[in-house]
Amino acid sequence: MFNKEMQTLGEERSVIRELFEYGARRKREIGAENVFDFSLGNPGVPAPACVEEEILRLLREVPGQVLHGYTSAPGLYEVRKAVADDLKSRFGADTDPDLVYMTCGASASLTVALCALCNAGDEVIVIAPFFPEYRVFIEGAGGKCVVVPSGKGFRPDLSALEGAITARTKAVIVNSPNNPTGVVYSEEEIEGIARVLRRASEARGEPVYLLADEPYRELTYGKTPPFVPNFYKETLVLYSFSKSLSLAGERIGYLSVPKNCAGAKELFAAISGAGRRLGFVCAPALFQRAVSVCLGRTADLGVYRENRDLLYGALVRFGYECVSPDGAFYLFVKSPEPDAKAFSERAKKFELLLVPSDSFGVPGYVRISYCVERSVIEHSLPAFGKLMEEYRK
Amino acid sequence: MFNKEMQTLGEERSVIRELFEYGARRKREIGAENVFDFSLGNPGVPAPACVEEEILRLLREVPGQVLHGYTSAPGLYEVRKAVADDLKSRFGADTDPDLVYMTCGASASLTVALCALCNAGDEVIVIAPFFPEYRVFIEGAGGKCVVVPSGKGFRPDLSALEGAITARTKAVIVNSPNNPTGVVYSEEEIEGIARVLRRASEARGEPVYLLADEPYRELTYGKTPPFVPNFYKETLVLYSFSKSLSLAGERIGYLSVPKNCAGAKELFAAISGAGRRLGFVCAPALFQRAVSVCLGRTADLGVYRENRDLLYGALVRFGYECVSPDGAFYLFVKSPEPDAKAFSERAKKFELLLVPSDSFGVPGYVRISYCVERSVIEHSLPAFGKLMEEYRK
Repeated sequence: MFNKEMQTLGEERSVIRELFEYGARRKREIGAENVFDFSLGNPGVPAPACVEEEILRLLREVPGQVLHGYTSAPGLYEVRKAVADDLKSRFGADTDPDLVYMTCGASASLTVALCALCNAGDEVIVIAPFFPEYRVFIEGAGGKCVVVPSGKGFRPDLSALEGAITARTKAVIVNSPNNPTGVVYSEEEIEGIARVLRRASEARGEPVYLLADEPYRELTYGKTPPFVPNFYKETLVLYSFSKSLSLAGERIGYLSVPKNCAGAKELFAAISGAGRRLGFVCAPALFQRAVSVCLGRTADLGVYRENRDLLYGALVRFGYECVSPDGAFYLFVKSPEPDAKAFSERAKKFELLLVPSDSFGVPGYVRISYCVERSVIEHSLPAFGKLMEEYRK
Repeated sequence: MFNKEMQTLGEERSVIRELFEYGARRKREIGAENVFDFSLGNPGVPAPACVEEEILRLLREVPGQVLHGYTSAPGLYEVRKAVADDLKSRFGADTDPDLVYMTCGASASLTVALCALCNAGDEVIVIAPFFPEYRVFIEGAGGKCVVVPSGKGFRPDLSALEGAITARTKAVIVNSPNNPTGVVYSEEEIEGIARVLRRASEARGEPVYLLADEPYRELTYGKTPPFVPNFYKETLVLYSFSKSLSLAGERIGYLSVPKNCAGAKELFAAISGAGRRLGFVCAPALFQRAVSVCLGRTADLGVYRENRDLLYGALVRFGYECVSPDGAFYLFVKSPEPDAKAFSERAKKFELLLVPSDSFGVPGYVRISYCVERSVIEHSLPAFGKLMEEYRK
């Protein structure tokens, strides 16, 4: 009848969503304050004032039929210019308004980029642990998802990466700051990845593209992520304002191509073609305008740092093993038993909702989203303590 | 290298966009008031006050992290319930909040529905003239676009439709009120299409789906379009608030499945899976909430009726041939010479921008979008007169 693969995709949901919905039911049963839901990456702090101030100004000053009308498919020129100027001034980026494409958020940036790049059967490499939807999006673009393990402390393993490249490798996705580990790649690590890809591209006579998926770029605690296109020119930057400006539900982001990327203009046409084919038409008009005056600004990320310090400190004291995250708002905690799903189930007894790591391509861990109210963390700590005691008996 | 089909899709643009961009250049050259741009279907009247009033209320009353956060993938439950209740109360629709999926506008409704329905090689029938992106979306879902001519006055030709159905036909797209003709199908016509599809479904033992693409539902001048699922239960309603609420750039619409549609629940799962795979995540959160309090209301459509009367009356007096539109905001005018592209080029000499009909699947016509400022129509009339005189010499 209809498409069964789509039905399965719709039914299986992500593990993350499933846990979130279990939590919603449980909150109705025993009260929201008694459930410690660390499942979703939904920003817990409001958008900075500049966003809503700009929306109010736009509503006052721009006629409705202009404000809410179609924009051109890649976005309003003045918005694309503001993004290009911001990337130039902050990172010395070599880009141009004509090579910035406004998208409906990070997932749209990914599906558009992958659909523009991949021919049927092309391989796209992801580094485990990775955002589980990467696989869905790669396969949707007709590609094959090739998983490469990361090294110690979830740092990139260059020889594993180099070993995974074949004649069909079209692109590598890099996600730093990383979901789910919070790891931020250093300049040396990005340079190392660039070296591997340059060698591979030279050997084949055509570029292997780098997709820098950066929704957490501004969410760092000290280390600034290197700007990837400055190290490797065949890099598409996939950005979203979901986390930096706490606008996850508004679906607004962008995709930028470096001017000196091989075939930049043709690649940008393919990006436009992919956006057209997938039915995006244009990114939401009001939020295109609103984010363009808030570039480089962020919601109050200090809240996340305090959350991290409080939760990380407590978990380590309880005896949990975890890499201290330098960015994003996740802790990737080693399960005290080999089976992370069993650990996640046991945690539910203490009303702790922790996402098992299997769908991230790594067994034996759980992801804890600490973008929650402070009180959730505070009240959850005894439960984390008791949970660990179960493994000490 | 990357995907050449996407590059071509991005480069060719639509004829409509191309003409629009020619117009933008021409306006810079000779002044906006001297160019009569009838190319785009961008609403010319502002959103009704209820939209912006609700946005202001939401900004005042709902905390930012809630207002702008992720919604569940099919949309906020209360919004889906409002849509289902509205369809029930206005049309006696047999639907349910659990079968309403909020989308990023009409194009997203189409790509999601087609991706949910089609397996590779499935055929989807469109009735000419048709919105040119149908072909792009059908092919994107792995399907084949099968074009059926319409009958006299662009009414549906049931025997042509029946003759085009094969064992691979998965769906038929019906678009009433129609872009580009403005024709609104009658109950008898919808019932006739339903009869053809019931016969075909019975013969094959599985349903042929009907996609009712209805962005112009509320844009009618007297005749109310029949609610298609009341005539044929395997109908997906694809709706957008782009035209009714003048929110084309905000990307907000929905898709609804009737409760008694065969396999409704599984089909809805396939729709969710398709939305996930294409990267939509959720429809824009602020506008989900805003439109839910404006259901059934519209921008000031009286402006379009007056535009229609003024332009249609004048064109007929000048000797142009045209069906009087009962809905939408387009006139589909017969070209005075067989080649519509040549006519469109000649019209440019008089600064009239008219879209040739070839990409709509019918040769020899032009589409005139009359959703423009009244003054554009008033000032364009002498040019239309002179253009026709060229054919009288």
